[in-house]
Amino acid sequence: MPQDTPFQPAFLTSAANDHVKRWRRLAESTRAVKKFGSTLAEGLHLAQVVAERRVPAQAVILSEACSREAQDLARAVVEAASQPGRAARVYVLARGVYDDVCPVENGTGIMVEVPVRACTRPAQALDVDALYLDGVQDAGNVGTLIRTAVAAGVRHIAASPDTAGFWTPKVLRAGMGAHFAAHLYENVEPEDLRAMFRGRRLAADARGGLDLFRTPGWETSGTVWMMGAEGPGLSQRALAVADARFLIDIEHDCESLNVGAAAAVCLFEQRRRRLTGS
Amino acid sequence: MPQDTPFQPAFLTSAANDHVKRWRRLAESTRAVKKFGSTLAEGLHLAQVVAERRVPAQAVILSEACSREAQDLARAVVEAASQPGRAARVYVLARGVYDDVCPVENGTGIMVEVPVRACTRPAQALDVDALYLDGVQDAGNVGTLIRTAVAAGVRHIAASPDTAGFWTPKVLRAGMGAHFAAHLYENVEPEDLRAMFRGRRLAADARGGLDLFRTPGWETSGTVWMMGAEGPGLSQRALAVADARFLIDIEHDCESLNVGAAAAVCLFEQRRRRLTGS
Repeated sequence: MPQDTPFQPAFLTSAANDHVKRWRRLAESTRAVKKFGSTLAEGLHLAQVVAERRVPAQAVILSEACSREAQDLARAVVEAASQPGRAARVYVLARGVYDDVCPVENGTGIMVEVPVRACTRPAQALDVDALYLDGVQDAGNVGTLIRTAVAAGVRHIAASPDTAGFWTPKVLRAGMGAHFAAHLYENVEPEDLRAMFRGRRLAADARGGLDLFRTPGWETSGTVWMMGAEGPGLSQRALAVADARFLIDIEHDCESLNVGAAAAVCLFEQRRRRLTGS
Repeated sequence: MPQDTPFQPAFLTSAANDHVKRWRRLAESTRAVKKFGSTLAEGLHLAQVVAERRVPAQAVILSEACSREAQDLARAVVEAASQPGRAARVYVLARGVYDDVCPVENGTGIMVEVPVRACTRPAQALDVDALYLDGVQDAGNVGTLIRTAVAAGVRHIAASPDTAGFWTPKVLRAGMGAHFAAHLYENVEPEDLRAMFRGRRLAADARGGLDLFRTPGWETSGTVWMMGAEGPGLSQRALAVADARFLIDIEHDCESLNVGAAAAVCLFEQRRRRLTGS
């Protein structure tokens, strides 16, 4: 390990550097995120959330072409992450090397390597609201769903094994920081939900069910909203464990809503009812 | 022009073919969509909508590796589009040529070239619900917004000049067919809204405003919901023409909702109020 102090960044120009190779793998592969137990948080906003929430970042990765704002944020991340005996390192990458590693298009010149916060499953069923994602494969959708759920006050989010990994850089990016305010459970089969959460399992189903807006009372105790993939919707296994199915009343000549929009409607209808008591 | 009948597809193997060159430009460039007045609808679902709505398609483009389902859909599109003196042509592209043209990842082997349906601005202000997009640049977001609005019964959608083009293939794809059930107006400045729509202009603003859920009565007449870009939100010019600003009550430690989720919440709260009368 080089002996630089945190504020003496290491300048990396080679794509063959071991750190660079690791970051490239994190950017490209869900398996690498699992293997290394860390991920890349890209962009000014995520870096700011990492600093504010004092996430124990391992490394701050800057492009040599980054803005002054990115440099200041790098400093804030390092300060927030540092504890006795552990300090986040800062690396400045030559432009081509940075762009090669950066997991998203139009990168802003700052990435933070952060540990994945894997939540262990509760020993006893929790009395909380939750969201369950069943086979949602699009990274942008999954990140947006986490963001929407946390904004609606639903901070426990579980996903089936075939849902996009919560901690991949693209999902993290779309989550806009909500990951760090959530309890995220991966590889959860529909049949596992009962043991994890006490709430009623409510399936959002474009094919039919109770009218979300006109059915009273479903919000009065904890809920586990279940959302399926674009196209197929919830799997048979997921529907089999649902206590009730709900339909959003949409125009007759539309097929369905995007899963992110459907979740926003269901979770904020829940929030509205609880806030207004009606 | 070759003299093939519609069901004798032309087989194209060269990337230098004039049609192929036009499709590649449509896939890549908003300007090409404007210049040619046509766009590419990619995927089985969009092809089905094109057939069902009898959109006057110009060409059906198949990959030589496409499924039987795609071939059947090609036939349906041609039948639906054909009128005396005009027939949609079918082209089968060599695999590499198709993949090169296809505007989205993971293409399903069928694209339809369809005319852009540009709506002329109304001569007199319309008494309808509308959605206004102010500087929303992400194609996926714009397509999802169109889909959500139409599902909520809001079929007039206008966009500022710096919003992603409604008719680019990526926006069309994310719209999942909602384009063909909507009235879409591009290059609309905020100051133009008053002359186009009679409804009250309601600005969704994460920075402050009336409480969406607790404020009564805003849904009782036509509305023009105004949504801004991720990050900056609505521009000063857009805010200046708004009749009221509205805030969605979210958890205090979240910054904001994704624009698609925010629109889903506002437009379906409007729909809920009108459906339930409460």
